[in-house]
Amino acid sequence: MNPIERPSFVVSRKRALENIRAMAEKARLSGVPLRPHFKTHQSLEIGGWYRDAGIDRITVSSVSMAEYFADGGWDDITIAFPVNILEAGRIDALAGRVRLGVLVDNVTVVRELERRVRNPLGIWIKIDTGYRRAGIDWENRDATGEVYGLVAASARHRFAGLLTHAGHSYGVRGREEHARLFEETARRMRSARSALPSSPAASCPISVGDTPTCSAVERFDGADEVRAGNFVFFDVQQLRIGSCAEEQIAAAVVCPVVAVYPERGEAIIYGGGIHLSKQAELLDGGAPFYGFAVSWDGKGWGKVRRDHYLKSLSQEHGIVHYGSDIPVRPGDLLAVLPVHSCLAMNLLRDEVVITE
Amino acid sequence: MNPIERPSFVVSRKRALENIRAMAEKARLSGVPLRPHFKTHQSLEIGGWYRDAGIDRITVSSVSMAEYFADGGWDDITIAFPVNILEAGRIDALAGRVRLGVLVDNVTVVRELERRVRNPLGIWIKIDTGYRRAGIDWENRDATGEVYGLVAASARHRFAGLLTHAGHSYGVRGREEHARLFEETARRMRSARSALPSSPAASCPISVGDTPTCSAVERFDGADEVRAGNFVFFDVQQLRIGSCAEEQIAAAVVCPVVAVYPERGEAIIYGGGIHLSKQAELLDGGAPFYGFAVSWDGKGWGKVRRDHYLKSLSQEHGIVHYGSDIPVRPGDLLAVLPVHSCLAMNLLRDEVVITE
Repeated sequence: MNPIERPSFVVSRKRALENIRAMAEKARLSGVPLRPHFKTHQSLEIGGWYRDAGIDRITVSSVSMAEYFADGGWDDITIAFPVNILEAGRIDALAGRVRLGVLVDNVTVVRELERRVRNPLGIWIKIDTGYRRAGIDWENRDATGEVYGLVAASARHRFAGLLTHAGHSYGVRGREEHARLFEETARRMRSARSALPSSPAASCPISVGDTPTCSAVERFDGADEVRAGNFVFFDVQQLRIGSCAEEQIAAAVVCPVVAVYPERGEAIIYGGGIHLSKQAELLDGGAPFYGFAVSWDGKGWGKVRRDHYLKSLSQEHGIVHYGSDIPVRPGDLLAVLPVHSCLAMNLLRDEVVITE
Repeated sequence: MNPIERPSFVVSRKRALENIRAMAEKARLSGVPLRPHFKTHQSLEIGGWYRDAGIDRITVSSVSMAEYFADGGWDDITIAFPVNILEAGRIDALAGRVRLGVLVDNVTVVRELERRVRNPLGIWIKIDTGYRRAGIDWENRDATGEVYGLVAASARHRFAGLLTHAGHSYGVRGREEHARLFEETARRMRSARSALPSSPAASCPISVGDTPTCSAVERFDGADEVRAGNFVFFDVQQLRIGSCAEEQIAAAVVCPVVAVYPERGEAIIYGGGIHLSKQAELLDGGAPFYGFAVSWDGKGWGKVRRDHYLKSLSQEHGIVHYGSDIPVRPGDLLAVLPVHSCLAMNLLRDEVVITE
């Protein structure tokens, strides 16, 4: 690989392959298809690693991302984001060349899809099982039934099933809590499904998908499809909530050191909000931090030390807190384990380095 | 302009031109050159507006950005970021074609520049006047003198002066406080300069540059160069700390509405952390928010209402808090006044729309 001169998103191929293998194996043993979320990496090259593991269907979070992967040969794609009807023309064109799934949670959008998209879509109804972002409240049987009725009456499109994202799993810690939340989510989805009027709708597929709960359970009981994505890289957020071990983290942002301040116990790196994103986790004392700073030996990164962290980020600068001895000097490289690998990868798509 | 279908960074040309005119005029009346920071917009087209206002020198925050503007015809560029010596080759190449200024705050980097960059540089010594990010502490006369001695002894490069960024201005509110900080910064810079051993170094240029203090003062007394940048667009952060009026904000992110939840008083927009950045401001109650949601009529945006704000951001989703009546429906567009316009613009460089 070329020498690293600028902030670069480094992927450990070995760890990512193992993360993919483990999740794909769990899906296989559960008899549930894995439709991994590709927003985490947005890379055709890394996408190929999933194909090698037997994956043939994917999830993305925008029409643009769906187009990118369709151009790369993926032909079964769900856009797991509420339909943006302003992109109806592009959705229609895409549905003409791949098997395309979309999400709806209101009648306005279903009517617009019927009117403006001629090529057939698989329409998932988005259910809110507690996250309070998008979706029909799982207890709102009337709304679920009403949207279903419109979808089922479509002359063009097909009802695909009920879909949820239990993103509130990021707010709880520990495998037991996450496993409990997986079960609760599946239970709430079955309850929502019971609002549908008739067979076969009453046994329609249930799609679930957040990495914390999908990492915690042994089997995907109660789900008919799993859409987790972050598990390929994991990150500091997942580490903090107990979804992964440190050794499973498969991505780091390698950054040049540009200055050190021994009297402050700090170093400045070329690596800021436009490389790592401003997503923060909280230190035990309540102050925000933006990733752990670890050593980089030119091939891989070292172990986390809880007192070596990014204490602040500007547009291009990061301030690394070391506290006492500073193990780097200007011109060195260090690695940052990012808080949220999906956001860092999105920012550094043009600066990706694959290592063993 | 084409219809907006996806999150887009919309610039009000009229407001941006007025912001540029006002800052350029203040610099002219003060007899101090304006070297605006172009990291805010990173656009050759918008850069041309400054040229029309008589600006012939610029500031950027990375070697890549310097290359971009050099390719666009700018030939007097300061990279206001501590030199990343790993990019010595690219810095050397750039110094061969434009008048290039760089920043140092330690002897290690000065020695490396002497060894590895053959084309002449203007070397600024970065002084920390209280921000505690990069730079030599303004009271550390020994360190300033030592770095100066090495720069002055260079056979290749030229000592340019002392430079600071009083970024701690973002932590204080109000024009009076900002004006007071401008004066304090100038005073501290003169004190740092008095550590230099001899004439003409003892009267070398002092370069300052944050938008809050430069917006607050009537004249740039005590500075020999001003590098502010954010003033071209301003944003919610600047509004909150009192650096601008709402009518001066010249950029908004226009986003499609994809769902509304009357029972929650919320709407979901296509517009998340990868469009707006995760930089937050705090509501009066202490909760974070990510921008104000205002109306969009196809040409311009409406007035801020303090109860209409982005309460959370995922990768692609934003949740808008309305509280009661929701003035939008799926398929509409709304505008978000971003917390930090520089970060939003960086994310949406390929989706810029210029309006009148």
